[in-house]
Amino acid sequence: MERPFVIINSAMSADGKISSFQREQVRISGPEDMGRVRGLRAGSDAVMVGVGTVLADDPGLRIKSSDHRKMRKDEGLSEEPLRVVVDSLARTPLGSEVLGKGSILAVSKAAPEERLDLLRDKCEIAVCGDIRVDLPLLLSILHNKGVRRLMVEGGATLNWSLIEAGLVDEISVYVGAMIIGGEGAPTLVDGPGFSTDYPKLSLISADRLDDGVLLRWRVLR
Amino acid sequence: MERPFVIINSAMSADGKISSFQREQVRISGPEDMGRVRGLRAGSDAVMVGVGTVLADDPGLRIKSSDHRKMRKDEGLSEEPLRVVVDSLARTPLGSEVLGKGSILAVSKAAPEERLDLLRDKCEIAVCGDIRVDLPLLLSILHNKGVRRLMVEGGATLNWSLIEAGLVDEISVYVGAMIIGGEGAPTLVDGPGFSTDYPKLSLISADRLDDGVLLRWRVLR
Ligand SMILES: NC(=O)c1ccc[n+]([C@@H]2O[C@H](COP(=O)([O-])OP(=O)(O)OC[C@H]3O[C@@H](n4cnc5c(N)ncnc54)[C@H](OP(=O)(O)O)[C@@H]3O)[C@@H](O)[C@H]2O)c1
Ligand SMILES: NC(=O)c1ccc[n+]([C@@H]2O[C@H](COP(=O)([O-])OP(=O)(O)OC[C@H]3O[C@@H](n4cnc5c(N)ncnc54)[C@H](OP(=O)(O)O)[C@@H]3O)[C@@H](O)[C@H]2O)c1
Repeated sequence: MERPFVIINSAMSADGKISSFQREQVRISGPEDMGRVRGLRAGSDAVMVGVGTVLADDPGLRIKSSDHRKMRKDEGLSEEPLRVVVDSLARTPLGSEVLGKGSILAVSKAAPEERLDLLRDKCEIAVCGDIRVDLPLLLSILHNKGVRRLMVEGGATLNWSLIEAGLVDEISVYVGAMIIGGEGAPTLVDGPGFSTDYPKLSLISADRLDDGVLLRWRVLR
Repeated sequence: MERPFVIINSAMSADGKISSFQREQVRISGPEDMGRVRGLRAGSDAVMVGVGTVLADDPGLRIKSSDHRKMRKDEGLSEEPLRVVVDSLARTPLGSEVLGKGSILAVSKAAPEERLDLLRDKCEIAVCGDIRVDLPLLLSILHNKGVRRLMVEGGATLNWSLIEAGLVDEISVYVGAMIIGGEGAPTLVDGPGFSTDYPKLSLISADRLDDGVLLRWRVLR
């Protein structure tokens, strides 16, 4: 099955946390990094998050800059990338910023029909998988829709599943000048974790940005 | 109370883990970084670990290189830095590599007398604190013994307590080219975690080393 090129993009503290133990959004990166993230988003065909991130942060995942919108139009693209939420049981709240035209809710067959009925006019619904969203299937559906470059904007659990399934090509992580700490705080990659055959990376670049460092890694196979 | 200059040194995966969820030692750094760590150790007056690290990894914390030993002797120092274990209840096994001449077991008043009797001829015992080791007191005791530069070699819980108490001056962390993952895997800084007033850092340097990056941070106050 063909799939898009997949980049995970995230900001973490110097100790690897993407949020505090309270799972509230923490401002980790600065203006330079935020500009970089907006550029990365504008250069993608779709942006993806897990429902955990929708519930915690309610991100809009939009393109705000008129330059970026124009750039995309000039290239014959839609003004904004597709916005994809991975949400087996359709728990995404009806008022979520991510919903609306251009949004796709990826659910499993276990999603309650009444939730889907409520959500259907706010997003496209893609059913993939029986219990949980089947990520290889979802990526092939996105590929069929013309998505060649997919940016994953978290969180910890979705990052894990994608890496574990061998579906990630690149990881861009901004390491911020702060400590968050906490056994229970989400990290860049959570899930059960590896205990052998750790996926290997290759460093593409390490650059100072704002008060921190941007690390770009290629995922090796 | 005066205390030594304190440097935390650690190796973590690109996702902030210092070990797997099984808490087994993972080889994260490479030969260049290991050389750097040996140099840092040789330049310290004492090296410290938590009992969790002793139980998991049984590190020796010795100076193996005859050059380093000679260098220290020429400077009028002991051949090796002191080795300090933070271990409230004296759980350090009798056969631990860290024990022997030059080792200090920091315990609390809650440590069972029979454990202390067994350990007494294998290390010096410093009683600090009632239930848990009182870290500010321990650092002042070390300062009184002439320790001016203390290297902390983990783990996650000791790092947390030291940072939380404002006792850390620098953090050197080697970021390795691998993913470990896992909600339950120890990270650079665990403990309960901050949810406000996150300690701020200032980046001293970011340098490629082996296949990864060495980040050196100053802890701001
Ligand atoms: N600093 C940053 O850059 C950044 C970025 C994003 C998020 N965050 C933080 O990350 C935290 C959220 O992370 P999270 O781990 O809780 O949630 P998440 O990764 O955003 O979403 C995980 C959820 O996705 C659903 N899902 C469906 N199919 C899945 C599959 N095959 N694999 C994995 N997940 C699947 C699961 O819920 P169902 O089973 O119900 O479907 C799962 O619980 C928040 O604290 C947020 O602030 C930080
Ligand atoms: N990659 C690396 O660079 C690296 C380096 C070191 C360790 N590690 C890994 O880290 C893991 C061990 O970390 P850990 O968090 O379990 O253990 P740890 O930080 O080494 O030791 C923590 C223990 O120290 C004792 N302690 C006493 N007083 C304390 C105080 N005031 N504050 C904090 N701790 C105090 C506590 O036990 P009591 O209450 O019984 O005293 C506590 O459980 C292992 O998996 C190891 O492989 C990795």
